[in-house]
Amino acid sequence: MTPHIVDHHDPSTRSQIEVVAFDADDTLWRNEEFFRGAEDLFMELVGPYVPDGVDLRAALTSVEVGNISLSGYGVKAFGLSMVECAVTVTAGRVPASVIGRIVDHVHDLLRHPVEILDGVPETLAAVGATHRVVLITKGDLVHQTRKVRTSGLEHHFEHVAVVLEKDPDAYRRLLSEWDINPATFAMVGNSVRSDVLPVVEIGGFGIHVPYHLTWHHETVDDPEHSYAELGSIRDVPAWLAGHA
Amino acid sequence: MTPHIVDHHDPSTRSQIEVVAFDADDTLWRNEEFFRGAEDLFMELVGPYVPDGVDLRAALTSVEVGNISLSGYGVKAFGLSMVECAVTVTAGRVPASVIGRIVDHVHDLLRHPVEILDGVPETLAAVGATHRVVLITKGDLVHQTRKVRTSGLEHHFEHVAVVLEKDPDAYRRLLSEWDINPATFAMVGNSVRSDVLPVVEIGGFGIHVPYHLTWHHETVDDPEHSYAELGSIRDVPAWLAGHA
Repeated sequence: MTPHIVDHHDPSTRSQIEVVAFDADDTLWRNEEFFRGAEDLFMELVGPYVPDGVDLRAALTSVEVGNISLSGYGVKAFGLSMVECAVTVTAGRVPASVIGRIVDHVHDLLRHPVEILDGVPETLAAVGATHRVVLITKGDLVHQTRKVRTSGLEHHFEHVAVVLEKDPDAYRRLLSEWDINPATFAMVGNSVRSDVLPVVEIGGFGIHVPYHLTWHHETVDDPEHSYAELGSIRDVPAWLAGHA
Repeated sequence: MTPHIVDHHDPSTRSQIEVVAFDADDTLWRNEEFFRGAEDLFMELVGPYVPDGVDLRAALTSVEVGNISLSGYGVKAFGLSMVECAVTVTAGRVPASVIGRIVDHVHDLLRHPVEILDGVPETLAAVGATHRVVLITKGDLVHQTRKVRTSGLEHHFEHVAVVLEKDPDAYRRLLSEWDINPATFAMVGNSVRSDVLPVVEIGGFGIHVPYHLTWHHETVDDPEHSYAELGSIRDVPAWLAGHA
């Protein structure tokens, strides 16, 4: 059963959304807060050993973004960047005990229980009643897999993919592997850069559900693309029903 | 064109291998050496700060294996474990500069060029002429993807999967996703524990090509399963040709 109106006479000019993909971090569950919390702890612990005039937060961002191509997104990569930054910015004056606390915190983050966002289970159930549902997330393979498995949401997803980077090629590869026509594909997520623009680029639908926090690396200054922006994930089923 | 003899009258009792999967680390390219090298550097750098009577190598292994379920396999997880161990074993006496060198070495490992093992490109080309070829590896998503992309071998593989753990469930999921019948599937790799036993368990063929170094976590003490053991990856095409 589907609420869509389909023009059977000319399928090439109208497409019906058949598959809905959801992003995970900050779309299904809280994530950015935990990174900010780790950053705050880093500032508090390392700050006292930093020479006057050094902007510690800017230094951390610089190390972190500089390492992305090498170590990727996710908590472990961030942890190694925090350690690297703590040592270099303090010219080795930071005590090992401080570094130990940072690494302990990283391991704590990896085992932290998933905190599902409001409206998510109901939305997945509603969308799953009318569409095929998949999950596409980037980040650390171990951590993301652990979160999916302990979230209580795994049964909603026909496929779960953890990718390195959410660029058009990555979406093309996944859709080809899953035998999904991009014109029938919609992606729901909190990042315009990762969840919306590349999906629009390959001919799919991007549905932006903003999160109250967005990592600087995920913001897009001047998006000139069209896509849906919804106030809440709870609005997704109605948007799908209204879309033909 | 395939060299196999197939009994067309009773396909259920004979299966022809159609898909050959290769492991990556220590099967296609050198890996374990780099971990051992990092471990040796760790011993050399941290050793001087360790109390008498403490077995530093055993402590590192203990921290490392204890963190696997949380942080997984791969260089970044190993790096965080080295930092954790350096701080705890020395009760914080290790200088931050030493930790900085360990983290720098981890980042160096992530960018180290792939060193292809002897006979690999020819073998992949030969097997690819008669079979579908895929790659299944575990470890760090970013690092493994980088290695595949820079190896010059990527074009040989119809699919590349980086999984969390190579257990029977993981193989079942992949084969189902790729629409492969396990009875027609062979896996080539250096680990009996990861590449052979789980594949035999789901009804496929395990082809063990030992590497001169095997990580302690990958050894199996008393395998009571039957599988092929080849002296070199160069022997794979002949084994496939002889198998019907």
